[in-house]
Amino acid sequence: MGQVKSITKKSEDISAWYNDVIARAKLAEHGPVRGTMIFRLLGFALWEAIQKTLDTKIKDLGAQNAYFPLFIPLSFLQKEQSHVKGFSPELAVVTHGGGEKLTEPVVVRPTSETIMYDAFSRWIESFRDLPLVINQWSNVVRWEKRPYMFLRTTEFLWQEGHSAHATNEDAQKMADGALKMYVDFYQNTLALYGYAGKKSETEKFPGADTTLTYEILAPDGKVIQACTSHNLGQNFAKVFKVEFQNEQGEKKLVWQTSWGLTTRSIGAVILAHGDDNGLVLPPQIAPLQVVIIPIISKGVDKDAILKMAGQAFGILEGNNIKVKMDDNDQSPGWKFNQYELEGVPLRIEIGSTELKDKSFRVVRRDNKDSFSFKLETIGFEIQQLLSTMQKDLLAKHKDFTLENTRQADTYEDFKKIMSATKGFIEAFWCEDASCEEKIKSETKASTRCFPLDGIKVEGKCIVCGKKSTRRWLFAQSY
Amino acid sequence: MGQVKSITKKSEDISAWYNDVIARAKLAEHGPVRGTMIFRLLGFALWEAIQKTLDTKIKDLGAQNAYFPLFIPLSFLQKEQSHVKGFSPELAVVTHGGGEKLTEPVVVRPTSETIMYDAFSRWIESFRDLPLVINQWSNVVRWEKRPYMFLRTTEFLWQEGHSAHATNEDAQKMADGALKMYVDFYQNTLALYGYAGKKSETEKFPGADTTLTYEILAPDGKVIQACTSHNLGQNFAKVFKVEFQNEQGEKKLVWQTSWGLTTRSIGAVILAHGDDNGLVLPPQIAPLQVVIIPIISKGVDKDAILKMAGQAFGILEGNNIKVKMDDNDQSPGWKFNQYELEGVPLRIEIGSTELKDKSFRVVRRDNKDSFSFKLETIGFEIQQLLSTMQKDLLAKHKDFTLENTRQADTYEDFKKIMSATKGFIEAFWCEDASCEEKIKSETKASTRCFPLDGIKVEGKCIVCGKKSTRRWLFAQSY
Repeated sequence: MGQVKSITKKSEDISAWYNDVIARAKLAEHGPVRGTMIFRLLGFALWEAIQKTLDTKIKDLGAQNAYFPLFIPLSFLQKEQSHVKGFSPELAVVTHGGGEKLTEPVVVRPTSETIMYDAFSRWIESFRDLPLVINQWSNVVRWEKRPYMFLRTTEFLWQEGHSAHATNEDAQKMADGALKMYVDFYQNTLALYGYAGKKSETEKFPGADTTLTYEILAPDGKVIQACTSHNLGQNFAKVFKVEFQNEQGEKKLVWQTSWGLTTRSIGAVILAHGDDNGLVLPPQIAPLQVVIIPIISKGVDKDAILKMAGQAFGILEGNNIKVKMDDNDQSPGWKFNQYELEGVPLRIEIGSTELKDKSFRVVRRDNKDSFSFKLETIGFEIQQLLSTMQKDLLAKHKDFTLENTRQADTYEDFKKIMSATKGFIEAFWCEDASCEEKIKSETKASTRCFPLDGIKVEGKCIVCGKKSTRRWLFAQSY
Repeated sequence: MGQVKSITKKSEDISAWYNDVIARAKLAEHGPVRGTMIFRLLGFALWEAIQKTLDTKIKDLGAQNAYFPLFIPLSFLQKEQSHVKGFSPELAVVTHGGGEKLTEPVVVRPTSETIMYDAFSRWIESFRDLPLVINQWSNVVRWEKRPYMFLRTTEFLWQEGHSAHATNEDAQKMADGALKMYVDFYQNTLALYGYAGKKSETEKFPGADTTLTYEILAPDGKVIQACTSHNLGQNFAKVFKVEFQNEQGEKKLVWQTSWGLTTRSIGAVILAHGDDNGLVLPPQIAPLQVVIIPIISKGVDKDAILKMAGQAFGILEGNNIKVKMDDNDQSPGWKFNQYELEGVPLRIEIGSTELKDKSFRVVRRDNKDSFSFKLETIGFEIQQLLSTMQKDLLAKHKDFTLENTRQADTYEDFKKIMSATKGFIEAFWCEDASCEEKIKSETKASTRCFPLDGIKVEGKCIVCGKKSTRRWLFAQSY
């Protein structure tokens, strides 16, 4: 009873609210080893729903699933210089196995480029073997000094796609295609608007030529890097000797990509859509889309109400809607709170009024709008409402993002915005790492990306005044 | 061309045959760290098919999926004495994380009882929270000194179910139910006959009161432990303080079970069903059930043949059969070999004879029986044939198992059988660990189980002559 009341208000302290929602909706818990996380039932159900939708899209990209070992010899990582440099500070190292000290320490995979491409070098012989596109669903470990539920955890779950191609153009097409898939997934499944763009040299993946990203704004004005897609060029092909014989019979190095999306996507959903009453789940990803609550009060024909509830249940299930009827003996008020906390998109109530009217009262989780539907059309109406709610959530998040994307033409303006509202700032930058570093150390804002639909214009770097040809997006990030 | 020819004959050297099939059908490869394994496309597709079928059955048992961390503090394992004793020799230990030596070493999970039950102790408050049944799909690590593809690997994939109950009876029912689910899965999905039974005290899981098992015979007379289901009693509940308040308001310890099935099930399928031409996959688990091969020779109406092939494809796909048409330019003979190697249950050929007859030639992978079907009935006929083949594979493996289950009334007989044919031996044993150990050290055969349907009879231990009330099953194991 009343447990919902003890959630911190989102507007008052978003960080405390976030932890409250995660605990009360039983999404997750801290693991005993610092930085690790237990995915509880609802938290893991969200990941299963993400996997189900995304796996189909990944296969549509031409990928097939495989599974590579968790343990990678340290020497593999050391082959690509920027790769090992980037990942060294985050590695978990196994030094003992089977009761003995290992002759070579092995690392717990932080990502699988090295172990996969070692295999690619054996698997690929000729141009007929290309493109090779492999996807893996797995856990990975990157030691996290500032852990944050879902968004930064030492162990996380993800998919990592890896490909090899005959030309750089083909590789770039793959990297673009993967990013497009992610953008579609974020917008149409998770209802999260964001900016797709290219990372700066400083922010790109260690070992990549270029990194594409999708950046999502959270309500506190900080930004979540929601996925990445890398054109690896021939950097790994060179050191792992991933070669193919082309149609002219010549040995050539392949061109490669890798791209991934992680369980931090769940953190983005919680943060962006949730409200003071708890989670708000986009219908496309909700493990439970509709809950039916019969309201039995004294003097009401219980059997007739349960019959109506049963009919609605049957129709909705027949329409492939994820529906549950809750007729246990908790009070309706308690149930309303509970399902709001858990973010169930629609609630159907059937009480004495509804019985008299032969109608169903339907309440939307996101904006509390209520509707009255008849049995004859309830399947269609609920489908429509789920679809409308899905679109509204995206539109709302898009509005919020655009409202919080500001231009700064001077460094003074930039600093003012970043200390007040935060959010995205579009600003000219000369693309020198030193100016980028100065901005980061003074304002905590880093370059997020150069938007893919950004236009070329003339301007001056807000720090050094040197010529710049495009506005980059800056923000503080999670 | 002709790559199939280089497979070792199964009857000549089953171990070499096994490795050949795994390599040529691209099921798996050794990973760079000794004992680890790369699941290639077909190998992983088999695991995905197993997961899909088993996940539904697991949810029917009342379980829901969650995910617990890979890293477990060493101190957690040390809480249950027999548990840590059993797993210590197999642990992988992480001593460094994020560039620093860890204050407490963490182990990579060999199984998740300890980390899960620590959480259960927080999650369970009253009898209303029971039973709690959680399942996890994950990777686990047990350092393997004698690795063998699929059957014994340092890292393997599995599901582990864990439950907590108010009474020992409820726990035993769960353990029995899980075993029953596995037996059903092995027999009806993987077409593998075996013996369900109880493990000896020596062979049971470290930390369990009793362990149930399903034991499968491979063609070389050695046995595969195919899954286990443990009644853990209150052993873990005691040390992790997993308590609940009963209906009388008293604090009580819960009763627990755990049960798992791993990627070694794929090894059992390969070994038991395969033949000199490669894999033979039971239709229920085959990622590809039917391949259609148009045979285009000179002077034949190519378009008419392709049209027939296309019609068959459409009908089969409409019947939810996993079907592929292969009309690339390799020779039919090469294709036949290739799909036999990969174990595709049925092959449909359409050449000049079939065109003339308006019929389809269908060949079964397992026994090479061929059939001629008309277009009008092909959907139904293929469904039937897949179902017949599924049953025949189980019947064949059952016959093989029964033929290779022998009784030995004296230790001399026992040793003779074990050095000649191997297989299962039913023998009286006094249930003393010393007699069990003597048999193992002298014949390599261990107790596999006391069959659940075994009857009580009077006899004498084949080693010491002491009274015994039941025959145990012995075998050499993988």
